[in-house]
Amino acid sequence: MKIKMLAGKTIEINVDLVKERAKCNFNIREVTHILDGGEKNTIQRKKIEDISLNDGQSRDVIPEEYLSPKERYENAVKKSCIYARIIKTELMNMTGLETLGFNSPVFRRIADAYFKEVTPLLAHFGMFVPTIMGQCTPEQLAHWLPRALNFEIVGTYVQTELGHGTFIRGLETTATYDPQTEEFVLHSPTLSSYKWWAGGLGKTVNYCVVVAQLYTKGVCHGVHTFIVQIRDEETHMPLPGIRVGDIGPKMGYNTGDNGFLVFNHHRIPRENMMMKNAQVLKDGTYVKVARHEKLTYGTMVYVRVMLVNEMAFNLAKAVTIAVRYSAVRRQSQPKPNQPEPQVLDYLTQQHKLFICIATAHALQFTSDWLYKTFTSVLADIRDDKIDTLPELHALSSCLKAICTSDCAAFIEICRFACGGHGYMASSNLSMIYSYVSATRTYEGDYTVLLLQTARFLVKAWEQVEKRRPVTSTISYLSHAFDKLKKPWDGSNEGIIRAFQRVAAGKISACINCIRYHQKSGKDFEDAWQLTTIQLVAAAEAHCRAVIYDTYYNETIRLTASSSPNVKSVMEQLCTLYLLYWSLERTGDLLRFTSLSEKDIFDLQQRYEKMLAVIRPNAVGLVDAFDIRDEILNSTLGAYDGRVYERLMEEALKSPLNAEPVNSSFHKHLKPFMQGKL
Amino acid sequence: MKIKMLAGKTIEINVDLVKERAKCNFNIREVTHILDGGEKNTIQRKKIEDISLNDGQSRDVIPEEYLSPKERYENAVKKSCIYARIIKTELMNMTGLETLGFNSPVFRRIADAYFKEVTPLLAHFGMFVPTIMGQCTPEQLAHWLPRALNFEIVGTYVQTELGHGTFIRGLETTATYDPQTEEFVLHSPTLSSYKWWAGGLGKTVNYCVVVAQLYTKGVCHGVHTFIVQIRDEETHMPLPGIRVGDIGPKMGYNTGDNGFLVFNHHRIPRENMMMKNAQVLKDGTYVKVARHEKLTYGTMVYVRVMLVNEMAFNLAKAVTIAVRYSAVRRQSQPKPNQPEPQVLDYLTQQHKLFICIATAHALQFTSDWLYKTFTSVLADIRDDKIDTLPELHALSSCLKAICTSDCAAFIEICRFACGGHGYMASSNLSMIYSYVSATRTYEGDYTVLLLQTARFLVKAWEQVEKRRPVTSTISYLSHAFDKLKKPWDGSNEGIIRAFQRVAAGKISACINCIRYHQKSGKDFEDAWQLTTIQLVAAAEAHCRAVIYDTYYNETIRLTASSSPNVKSVMEQLCTLYLLYWSLERTGDLLRFTSLSEKDIFDLQQRYEKMLAVIRPNAVGLVDAFDIRDEILNSTLGAYDGRVYERLMEEALKSPLNAEPVNSSFHKHLKPFMQGKL
Repeated sequence: MKIKMLAGKTIEINVDLVKERAKCNFNIREVTHILDGGEKNTIQRKKIEDISLNDGQSRDVIPEEYLSPKERYENAVKKSCIYARIIKTELMNMTGLETLGFNSPVFRRIADAYFKEVTPLLAHFGMFVPTIMGQCTPEQLAHWLPRALNFEIVGTYVQTELGHGTFIRGLETTATYDPQTEEFVLHSPTLSSYKWWAGGLGKTVNYCVVVAQLYTKGVCHGVHTFIVQIRDEETHMPLPGIRVGDIGPKMGYNTGDNGFLVFNHHRIPRENMMMKNAQVLKDGTYVKVARHEKLTYGTMVYVRVMLVNEMAFNLAKAVTIAVRYSAVRRQSQPKPNQPEPQVLDYLTQQHKLFICIATAHALQFTSDWLYKTFTSVLADIRDDKIDTLPELHALSSCLKAICTSDCAAFIEICRFACGGHGYMASSNLSMIYSYVSATRTYEGDYTVLLLQTARFLVKAWEQVEKRRPVTSTISYLSHAFDKLKKPWDGSNEGIIRAFQRVAAGKISACINCIRYHQKSGKDFEDAWQLTTIQLVAAAEAHCRAVIYDTYYNETIRLTASSSPNVKSVMEQLCTLYLLYWSLERTGDLLRFTSLSEKDIFDLQQRYEKMLAVIRPNAVGLVDAFDIRDEILNSTLGAYDGRVYERLMEEALKSPLNAEPVNSSFHKHLKPFMQGKL
Repeated sequence: MKIKMLAGKTIEINVDLVKERAKCNFNIREVTHILDGGEKNTIQRKKIEDISLNDGQSRDVIPEEYLSPKERYENAVKKSCIYARIIKTELMNMTGLETLGFNSPVFRRIADAYFKEVTPLLAHFGMFVPTIMGQCTPEQLAHWLPRALNFEIVGTYVQTELGHGTFIRGLETTATYDPQTEEFVLHSPTLSSYKWWAGGLGKTVNYCVVVAQLYTKGVCHGVHTFIVQIRDEETHMPLPGIRVGDIGPKMGYNTGDNGFLVFNHHRIPRENMMMKNAQVLKDGTYVKVARHEKLTYGTMVYVRVMLVNEMAFNLAKAVTIAVRYSAVRRQSQPKPNQPEPQVLDYLTQQHKLFICIATAHALQFTSDWLYKTFTSVLADIRDDKIDTLPELHALSSCLKAICTSDCAAFIEICRFACGGHGYMASSNLSMIYSYVSATRTYEGDYTVLLLQTARFLVKAWEQVEKRRPVTSTISYLSHAFDKLKKPWDGSNEGIIRAFQRVAAGKISACINCIRYHQKSGKDFEDAWQLTTIQLVAAAEAHCRAVIYDTYYNETIRLTASSSPNVKSVMEQLCTLYLLYWSLERTGDLLRFTSLSEKDIFDLQQRYEKMLAVIRPNAVGLVDAFDIRDEILNSTLGAYDGRVYERLMEEALKSPLNAEPVNSSFHKHLKPFMQGKL
C-alpha cells in the first residue's frame, strides 16, 4: 500500500503493517512523549535527529561490513569527524541543548545512525571529558576542559591492564614522583601491567587519563589518575617512552580501536596528576584533600545510570525490528486451506516478544527514576549528607548487572524470533547483541556487581534485625520477620509484595548460611565466599523486586493524566511483566509465599489472555519507540516493512556479487576439481 | 615452567597450570578414551589429526579477522582445496577409515583448525553428498555419487526461500514438467520464492539439489528434489536462466558464501529429478514409489544426531578455554596481605564452569546413545518395523532443540567467565558462540521442534490413559496417574525419577488445558495453539528427563571397567549435573514432587560441596577433551597457558599496528582538530 509522507514523498508500506497500524487503539504519539519524558523532549529529540540525519551523511555507500577491519576503522574516523563537528557546531550551542552534555542519550541515538559499531571518539565523549570534569582542580579544569571540548586534544581513559580488570587495587603501572625534575615517571614493570582495552587508544587519541599506582618518597599511595600525552599533537607519532597500538579484533566495538599502552620510564609534569582529591607537592609530599572518598563513586554511578538507559534503548531497537518483521512474516498452515498466518499471531511468538516491549519500558522508567535518585543523592552530598550513598551505589550496581544481562538475553530472543533472517548482519540484531553483551562485563562484571549489592544487603539485614531504620528500597526486609505467610494476592501490588518477600527470604537464607559456616569455625570472609552463589541470587531477587516496584509506580505516575487507552495499554504491559516473572519464578514464589498450584494455573491463564489483549497494539507499541530507520539500520525492521526487498538490495551490495566468477575458482577450485592440486 | 615434549621440543608452561595438572587425581587418557568411544577411536583420531595438522597448512599467516569479507572467502576457498585434498587422498582410503564418511565428527574437528568460520564446501560434505546417497535411484547414484565424491562437481542443498523456512509445504519455487522436451522447467515466480541461505551457493558450487513444487499434467504433487547444474563446469559462469549470488554478511559462517538463487524458466532433463521415492514418467505420469514416507526422516534425524555431537564438542572447546584461563587468571584480594587468588578458586566461577564440563559429557553421551538408537531404528525399518520411528523423530527433535540452546547459553557463560578478554576475537569464544547460536535455528527452529515433540507426547499420553503400551523413553508417563506423591529422594536415581514426574505433570497440565479449551467450544487445533507456551515447556521437561536418565546410565555403563578415580570423577560430574538442574528447577520440583525447603537447603549444600570436590580435577577434566591448540584456536585456552603473551602476539599482527600513524589522522582527524573541517 502506498502512503503519502509529510515531505510529499510517497512510500510503499507493507500491507500487513498498514493493517496492524489501523488496529492500534491508542495514541502512539502520547506514548512516545511518556517514553521521552515529556512532549518537549520529543520535540527536541526530533529536531536533533533532523539536524544530524536528514542530509544522509550518516550512511555509507558501501556498508562497512564489506570492508576490512582497517578500512572500517578509517571509515569510522572519517565519520567521527562529521559527527563530532555536528555536535560541536550545530548542537551544543542550540537553545535548550546546553545542558545535554556529550553523553546525552539523544547523542547516543544519533551515533547509532552513524556507526554500526562505535565511534573511536566514544571514550573521549564518555570517559575522558567526564573524568576531567570530575577529578581536576579548578586550575586544571581551566587548562584541560576547553581543549578537550574543542577537540584540540582527543583523549581516552586508561585503567585496565592485561592482567588486571575489576580489581583496581591490583593495577601494576607505576607513577613514581621525581622531586629533582618535578615529574612523574610512568612505567609498565611487567607484561601483565600493559594497559589494555581503552577505547580509541590504539590509533586515535593523543592524550589519555592513566590510572597508576602513585609512589612518592618511597611510599605507595594507591591508584591515582594522571593526564598523559602519548602522541605528538602535530605528527601524531607516539612519544618516546610510549608504545601504543590496537589490541586487535573483538566480538563487537571493532571500529573503536581499543588499544594497548606500554610505558618505558615515561616522564610527565607534576601538574598532570589530577589533583582534586589528592596532591603531590613539589617536594614530593603527599597530601590527601579532605573530602568524602565516596565522591569518586559519582562518575561510576552516573555511567551505570546511563548504561541502563542505553540498554533499554537497544532492547527497544531489537524488539521494534522483531515485532515489525513478525507482522510481515507468514509461516505454516495450522488449518488446511487457510493462508499462512503472520508469525505474530502465534502465542509462542507473542510470548517471546511482548515481554521485550514491557522490559524496554520497565528499564527506561527504572533508569529515569535512578537518575532522579542519583541527582538527589548528589545534592545531599553537597549538603554533607552521605547516608543515602551506599543505597545508591548498591542500586546502581545491581541494576547495571541485571539490566545489561536481561537486555542481552531478550535481544537474543528477538533475534531467534526472526528465525534465519535474524542471523543476517543486515537485520542488525547480531550487531546489537555483540554491542550489548559487552556491557555485562565492562564498568563492573555482572557477578562482582551483584556481590557488591549483596554486601549492602547483608549489612542492611543486620540493621533490620536490630530494628534500626533502613533506607526506602530495603524497608521491605522487615517483613521477613513476619511469622505467617500472607495469603496469595495476584494483583500487581500483591505480586510486587510477594517478590519482596522472595528477596527477603533469599537474603535471610544467605545470612543463615554465612552464620552456619561461621559457627563451624570459618572467619566471616571465608563464610562469605562459601555463600557467594546464593548471595548473587539474593542480590538479583532484590534488584528485580526494585524494578517491579519502580516500573509499577512509575507507570501509574506517568500515565496519571494520559488518555484512557494509553493508560490501559501501559498498565497492561506492566501487568504482563509481573505475570511473566511470576511464572518464570514459580520456584521462588512457592518457597517464600503461599502460592498454590491453582494460583499458578490462574497466573498462566491471565498471562496468556494478556498476550491476546496486547496483540492488536503490538506494532503500535514498537512504533511508539519512534526509532528512525537510520538508527534501526535493519532490513527486517524498517517502518515500511519491505523486508524481502531490502534483504535482496543489501545482498546485491556485496563486492562478491560485483563479478560473476570469483578469482578463487580459477586459482584454486578448478585445479583442485580437475585433480591438478 | 619448561616442559619437554615428545618431539624433543621444549615449551614453557604457565606455572599455575603445571600445579593444576599435578593435582589431578585421575588418569586423563582413560577419560579421553571414554569420550572418544574407546581407545581405538582415540588412536585413529590422533592419527588423522597428525596427518591433517602437523604440517601447519591449516594456519593463516595473517589471521582471517584482518581480511575483508571477500578476501576471507577467497582464503577459505584456497584452504578448502587443501583440506578436501587431504580428506580425499590421504584419509578416505586409510585403513579403518573407509566408514567414516565426509560428515564424521573427526573431520569436523579438523575443519575447526582450518576454518575459524566454515569451509564453503561444508554443504557439499554435509548435505549434497548425503542427499544424493539418500534420494537417488541406483542408476542416478552410479552417475552422480562418484562425480561428487571425486569433487568433479561441487554442490549444495537448496531448500529455503526468502519467504519460506520451516514450513516446507509453503515453498513457492516450481518445477513444471514439459513432456514435449522431457524437461522440468524451474521457476521463481515471486520475490519471496527466491532461494536463500544455502551454504556455498553464492560463488562456490556448480551443482545443487533444489527443492521445488512438482507440477505435471497440471497437478501439483508437492515438494520434490532435483539435481540442477547452475554454473558452467569449465568457466564457472552462471547458466542462462540462473541468477545466483552471495546473500551478504551474517553473524557467523561468513566464509560459507551462503547464496541466493533465482530461476527464470530454467530447464533441466527429466532424469535430474531425484527418483528414489517418486517418479515422473516420460509422458508426465506421476508415480509414487511404494515406500514408507517416513524414510525421508532418515537424513533429517541423522543431521540432528550429528548436530548434538558437534554442539557437545563446541561446548568442550569453550569450557577448555575458560577453565585453563581461570587457572591462570588471578583477581582481587579477599583477605589482606595474600596474593590474588586464581579465579578458578571462586565458588561463583566454579558454578559457571563445572556445569559446562558436565554438560559436554552429558550431551556427548546422549548423542552417542541417540546415534545407536538411530541405527537400530534404521535396521527395524529395513525389516518393515516402523513403530519406533515416531519416538526417534520426537527424541531427535527435542534433543536438537535443547542441546543447541543449552550449548549456546553455556558457551556464553564461558565467555562471560573470561571477563573482558573473553570478548577478544582471539579468545575464539565469540566465534564459537556465533557458530553455535545459528544451530538453534537451522535444521528446525527451537520452538517448532519442541512443539513437534509435544505432538508426540500428547498422543503418547492418550495411549497411556487408555493403558496401552508405549515405547521406552515415555514409559514414565504412567506414573503421572499415581495418586500419591512419593517422598523426596535426593539420590541420582531419585532425582531422575523426580524429573520424569515433572515432565509427566507438565504434559498432564497441557492435556487439561487443551481439553479445557475444547470444552469451551474450540476445535482441537485452536485449543492446541492456545496451549503452545505450555507445550514447549512440557517438551523441554521431557527432553531434560531423557538427558538426565541417559547421562546417568551411560556414565555407569561406560565407566564399568574404569579405574576407581576415573569412575569417581565421571560420577561426580553426573551428580553435579543432576544437582545443578534440581536447583535451577526448584519450582518444577516443588509443584510436582514432595521436595521441601529443607531438601532445597540440602541440595544447595551438596551442590556446593561437589564443586569443591571437582575443583582439583578441573584442569585435568578439560585436558581430557584432548583438543589440540590448532583446533581450540584461542589465546586464552592454549595448553601452555601463555595467555598474556599470546594476546600481545596476536594484537601485533593487526595491520593497524604496521604503521605508527594511520592515514586517517592526516586526512580527517587533524583537519577536524584544527577546526578546518
